[in-house]
Amino acid sequence: MRGAVLYGPRDVRFEERQTPRITQPTDAIVRLSVTSICGSDLWPYRGIQEVSEPTPMGHEYCGIVDEVGSAVTKIKPGQFVIGSFFASDNTCPNCQIGYQSSCQHRELVGGAQAPLLRVPLAEGTLVATRDVPKQDMVPSFQAVSDVMGTGWFAADAANVRQGSTVVVVGDGAVGLLAVLSAREMGAERIIAMSGHESRSRLAREFGATDTVAERGEPGVARVMELTRGIGADSVLECVGTQESMTQAIQCARRGGYVSYVGVPHGVELEGQELFFAHVHLHGGPAPVRRFLPKLIDLVWSGKINPGKVFDLTLPLDRVAEGYRAMDERRAIKALLRP
Amino acid sequence: MRGAVLYGPRDVRFEERQTPRITQPTDAIVRLSVTSICGSDLWPYRGIQEVSEPTPMGHEYCGIVDEVGSAVTKIKPGQFVIGSFFASDNTCPNCQIGYQSSCQHRELVGGAQAPLLRVPLAEGTLVATRDVPKQDMVPSFQAVSDVMGTGWFAADAANVRQGSTVVVVGDGAVGLLAVLSAREMGAERIIAMSGHESRSRLAREFGATDTVAERGEPGVARVMELTRGIGADSVLECVGTQESMTQAIQCARRGGYVSYVGVPHGVELEGQELFFAHVHLHGGPAPVRRFLPKLIDLVWSGKINPGKVFDLTLPLDRVAEGYRAMDERRAIKALLRP
Repeated sequence: MRGAVLYGPRDVRFEERQTPRITQPTDAIVRLSVTSICGSDLWPYRGIQEVSEPTPMGHEYCGIVDEVGSAVTKIKPGQFVIGSFFASDNTCPNCQIGYQSSCQHRELVGGAQAPLLRVPLAEGTLVATRDVPKQDMVPSFQAVSDVMGTGWFAADAANVRQGSTVVVVGDGAVGLLAVLSAREMGAERIIAMSGHESRSRLAREFGATDTVAERGEPGVARVMELTRGIGADSVLECVGTQESMTQAIQCARRGGYVSYVGVPHGVELEGQELFFAHVHLHGGPAPVRRFLPKLIDLVWSGKINPGKVFDLTLPLDRVAEGYRAMDERRAIKALLRP
Repeated sequence: MRGAVLYGPRDVRFEERQTPRITQPTDAIVRLSVTSICGSDLWPYRGIQEVSEPTPMGHEYCGIVDEVGSAVTKIKPGQFVIGSFFASDNTCPNCQIGYQSSCQHRELVGGAQAPLLRVPLAEGTLVATRDVPKQDMVPSFQAVSDVMGTGWFAADAANVRQGSTVVVVGDGAVGLLAVLSAREMGAERIIAMSGHESRSRLAREFGATDTVAERGEPGVARVMELTRGIGADSVLECVGTQESMTQAIQCARRGGYVSYVGVPHGVELEGQELFFAHVHLHGGPAPVRRFLPKLIDLVWSGKINPGKVFDLTLPLDRVAEGYRAMDERRAIKALLRP
């Protein structure tokens, strides 16, 4: 089969790769209905995160189970399933309290920008829908696999409640879906920090009540104005840089909550600043598995349509074009059809 | 009147100072029943925190109201009162959600190692007991003013619940009272990290089920052994150094809670380490005012006796000796009698 492989900065190739096979009795092979490019794929693509060898790319996936290992009984060939970037057994102590992305036996799922994918720990990792969904729902299920699950975790980790005032830092797909998540959780006011026209528009469509184009100190000043000098109850940091993290902490009210869901790159938190900011801080790799049943229901019932973040659809063999478009911020997120 | 003044590293003097007077209509003057030295007083005493001019010391206090300003009606002369190191109006938005130590009008209370103290924003800051307590209860009320309130915040901010497994990093007065707080909140297992004999003994008396003498990596390894490789639900960091903070984060389970209540000195948190640790982090200057009514009740009813942390009592004029004993770790905490 052919799939996407990253060779180095801005060098992604669509080329012949080994077809995945069952290697463990707990594996499943999934024939992907669609696949996609994640904002986090841009870190190695841009050379900020080194790749030491040609690396098969992609970790967002949904599709039809093709084959299962001998130990897999609850997941069956023919089912439409969704999984997340960390495979998890869903039974260890970390999984049981809802931190499946820190599963004691977790394995990174990789190489999903391809027609077929091996998913380890299939029974713990995959959640099947009640039926095979119609084509028009598939992009939303694909979003649930990662960006929607991560946006939801951002809102959950920042304690968003009925009536909350929320700030979302970052207008990538995760930030936009964090807005949608905050709305679903009943936030009264949602301030999306975005200076980008089409992204701000989508943020408003997803539930943002205000948008702030300024960044850094002027951005913080604007949030303070909008919150009568108090700051937001919940701030959802969906970027992962020092600037965005600092901005997030400064936008929070004293005693407020800051979540961070993008892998931090070059971020250092100074102890006293954090201490006197008086915030709650929580983040990490999103335990998407915890939220899959809930999010699948929300999509199935038509309550949310997170697939709207895909504003570029390409055949899989043009994957390199998808990376370029996202790198240059011409696209929010690219959907690829195998 | 005479009180303690810090001139520079290890140079604390007991000398003539201006007698406090009402300067704002919201002030009260309190005649202190006792006073004490805080672990945080040792930062400037040791020269780690600079003092640019002779500084009146002390911020832990309880005593009898001597005089009140014209705007103070609910606090009355003759009442026995307890306050905290940050004066707060108790009405601003930050106070209303329980973060009085980030009150929008907060003022540091200083100079409490003296017979008399001016307390700003007296009505918001001070809480009166139902009656003037007996002498033997006074040290416990004095502890409530700061170290007990701070230990309680450590347990509260780290989400200690019925049945929790808790680690307390730091065997100073705050750490010991964090143990007591965790016990009061129903923790099932409390691991106190202390290699100091008399402190470990007091930790056990306060409710520690285990003590760990090792620090750093061997200390973390020991905690992991004791928690079947999972880590603790709640870790209470009561020191404020890089070593203690790192140790605290590493002792927590994935999805667990870490609180930090000592002003961090030279602490930097690396973004990715914190991200993959998957912990909740909360801390800051303890909003002791939030907990005063509850803690006063617990002391009054005899349920807790936090005054036990005072293992050295001196007349106020020997305050310098108290600093020396605490600096050399010969005393956990010094009580001073004016």
